[in-house]
Amino acid sequence: MTTIHPVAGVRIGIASAGIKKVGRKDLVVFELAEGSATVGVFTRNAFCAAPVIVARENLAATQPKYLLVNTGNANAGTGASGIEAAQATLAALAQAAKCEPAQILPFSTGVIGEPLPVAKIEAAIPAALSDLQTNNWAQAAEGIMTTDTRPKVASRQVEFGGERFVITGVTKGAGMIRPNMATMLSYVATDLAIDEVLLQQALLRAVDQSYHRITVDGDTSTNDACTLSATGQSALPRVDSDNELYQVFCETLDDLLLELAQMMVRDGEGATKFFQIEVSGGKTEQECLDVAFTIAESPLVKTALFASDPNWGRLLAAIGRAGLHDLVIDDVTLHLNDVLIAEQGCRAASYTEEQGVAAMAPTDIVLRVGLNRGPAQTTVYTTDFSYDYVRINAEYRT
Amino acid sequence: MTTIHPVAGVRIGIASAGIKKVGRKDLVVFELAEGSATVGVFTRNAFCAAPVIVARENLAATQPKYLLVNTGNANAGTGASGIEAAQATLAALAQAAKCEPAQILPFSTGVIGEPLPVAKIEAAIPAALSDLQTNNWAQAAEGIMTTDTRPKVASRQVEFGGERFVITGVTKGAGMIRPNMATMLSYVATDLAIDEVLLQQALLRAVDQSYHRITVDGDTSTNDACTLSATGQSALPRVDSDNELYQVFCETLDDLLLELAQMMVRDGEGATKFFQIEVSGGKTEQECLDVAFTIAESPLVKTALFASDPNWGRLLAAIGRAGLHDLVIDDVTLHLNDVLIAEQGCRAASYTEEQGVAAMAPTDIVLRVGLNRGPAQTTVYTTDFSYDYVRINAEYRT
Repeated sequence: MTTIHPVAGVRIGIASAGIKKVGRKDLVVFELAEGSATVGVFTRNAFCAAPVIVARENLAATQPKYLLVNTGNANAGTGASGIEAAQATLAALAQAAKCEPAQILPFSTGVIGEPLPVAKIEAAIPAALSDLQTNNWAQAAEGIMTTDTRPKVASRQVEFGGERFVITGVTKGAGMIRPNMATMLSYVATDLAIDEVLLQQALLRAVDQSYHRITVDGDTSTNDACTLSATGQSALPRVDSDNELYQVFCETLDDLLLELAQMMVRDGEGATKFFQIEVSGGKTEQECLDVAFTIAESPLVKTALFASDPNWGRLLAAIGRAGLHDLVIDDVTLHLNDVLIAEQGCRAASYTEEQGVAAMAPTDIVLRVGLNRGPAQTTVYTTDFSYDYVRINAEYRT
Repeated sequence: MTTIHPVAGVRIGIASAGIKKVGRKDLVVFELAEGSATVGVFTRNAFCAAPVIVARENLAATQPKYLLVNTGNANAGTGASGIEAAQATLAALAQAAKCEPAQILPFSTGVIGEPLPVAKIEAAIPAALSDLQTNNWAQAAEGIMTTDTRPKVASRQVEFGGERFVITGVTKGAGMIRPNMATMLSYVATDLAIDEVLLQQALLRAVDQSYHRITVDGDTSTNDACTLSATGQSALPRVDSDNELYQVFCETLDDLLLELAQMMVRDGEGATKFFQIEVSGGKTEQECLDVAFTIAESPLVKTALFASDPNWGRLLAAIGRAGLHDLVIDDVTLHLNDVLIAEQGCRAASYTEEQGVAAMAPTDIVLRVGLNRGPAQTTVYTTDFSYDYVRINAEYRT
């Protein structure tokens, strides 16, 4: 069991609004202490949900005092009335919490295309506010779940210069993993005081190496959002330059988001494997990413992975169609874990089918692709395509 | 039953070499009469098979007299020895047929990474040559099959200026459909006499509107090849300019290749649906293609299609992530057959779930996407992701 460190300046309240199921914890309120700075990253999908539009606007206008999250309904594909519904829930929380509606960011996850049940959310807000406490991170991780099979929370406490700071975060597995649930949502907070521009840089960098490095099926959701809040209640000095403390913070944040991202892959729909794809020797990081994602999203690779089949032909075929200019396939090397399986455009001379079968047997498998044409590298995480993936996504609406 | 018109100047011989299964017709020889012109289109995959490398070279050097096709073994992922094996089969046919090896194009389809059984092919060449006749197109369509469930042949006879010309072709369903079988192979011939440059233009145009408009899983094969031969034995005058006869030829070829391409989609792995995606109102054809292929290759769309689920949220989400600059999702309209299902970023007011269910019930479904921002349009054909797709691709090697 991981230790969850509360973040001074963040209180969390959970309630049951009965949005989709009666009695389910489906409403989470994060309260951020006066003086907190919050930054966010949102879906790049042009078809973005009403709460994403409102949250972006409010975040640009002022510093949020509250984050309001509901599950059971994504408020996506709801047009102009979806915006009004999101605003109505903010008005209700603002009145109860005595702040401005613009000081709240809304987040929704769940079914697309159904009207948000505003009255149910309004009715549950008092219960969420009376539940506010600093020790509720584990409950928040449960409260934002939809089809996740387990809550996802990660936490770090770091010693620096005789003092300590904390970073704690929760996520739910959606995003590129469960886009049908229309959301990856992630809330992370630290008690450090950090300049907002530096905070935004840290979040972008960490997301780029974690949430942007995972895929289950290549689909991107309409509601994806990740926020990072800094409450400034640690005894450590305010971070307003790229100093040593900032570096330590960034590294800790990178590590924490990667842990949360990997939890999402492991909990991916129908997942039976955790597939780590390391591509090295590219001319640029982008071409390493192109190769890694072409492999990660190839249905032929993913079905072979489900079958624990060391199918190096499909791997080379995926690399060959990744669009790299002047790629010489004979220069490419493939390792499964430590086993060299292919080189010079064909099966490695030293390779035996027994080695391949042994390498594919565990749940966790590392594929190492050597492009041997440059210094760049990257790592991407994905999972397999199983019968359950088809079942879950074919049956979801029924 | 379609009428198959033989092409004067093309004789075809089929034999059983026992490459993978004893007794199976697995070797096909096309003989092209003296004076024939042949052009080809090959896979763009950087990991291309030995026969593709050899065929490209030979086609650039001289006009082919023979096409030599084997199934059961793709001769892909076989490195330098694969090239030698392909050359050895050409040498054997050249000796028996009294031509130069460079006047033959080799084609292989089947398992990747296994050595081509050259001796078996050499032994069967005399039988294939003694079988040569003009009426063997249906047999050729069967002889090039691998996991195809049915042969694919199409034929046209066209009246022009009191004379006639013929175009006949065969294909096997691979390519972007069955890349694990490592091949879409297609052989088309006409008895017209056509300038080689014009012939190449006609093929590129027709392939672009047919084989390049179909996808099952987005994977591209290592062996894809399509050739077009013109024997010049029709009584019609030689086509050496972009005249009316050339236009008629091109239109007929477009139509024929589209028929063959659609046959491949319908015979796609595990396919239960035929999904035609028409995207109109784009600024450019490329952005229409980006939208159409993002929809066609979305696992979430494909599993919903398998479930006959009119899931417009997944469709809008796929359109939203297709990468179109400044796309306004509220301008997009979605029709299933003639039913308006979504507009203004949400479910159409007139839409009922009953209409959607009725539209999704047949095997053949047309999705019409209106981008409403320009004059361009395109059409793409695909199929669904079923349990059988996973089964076929997870079990293929075992």
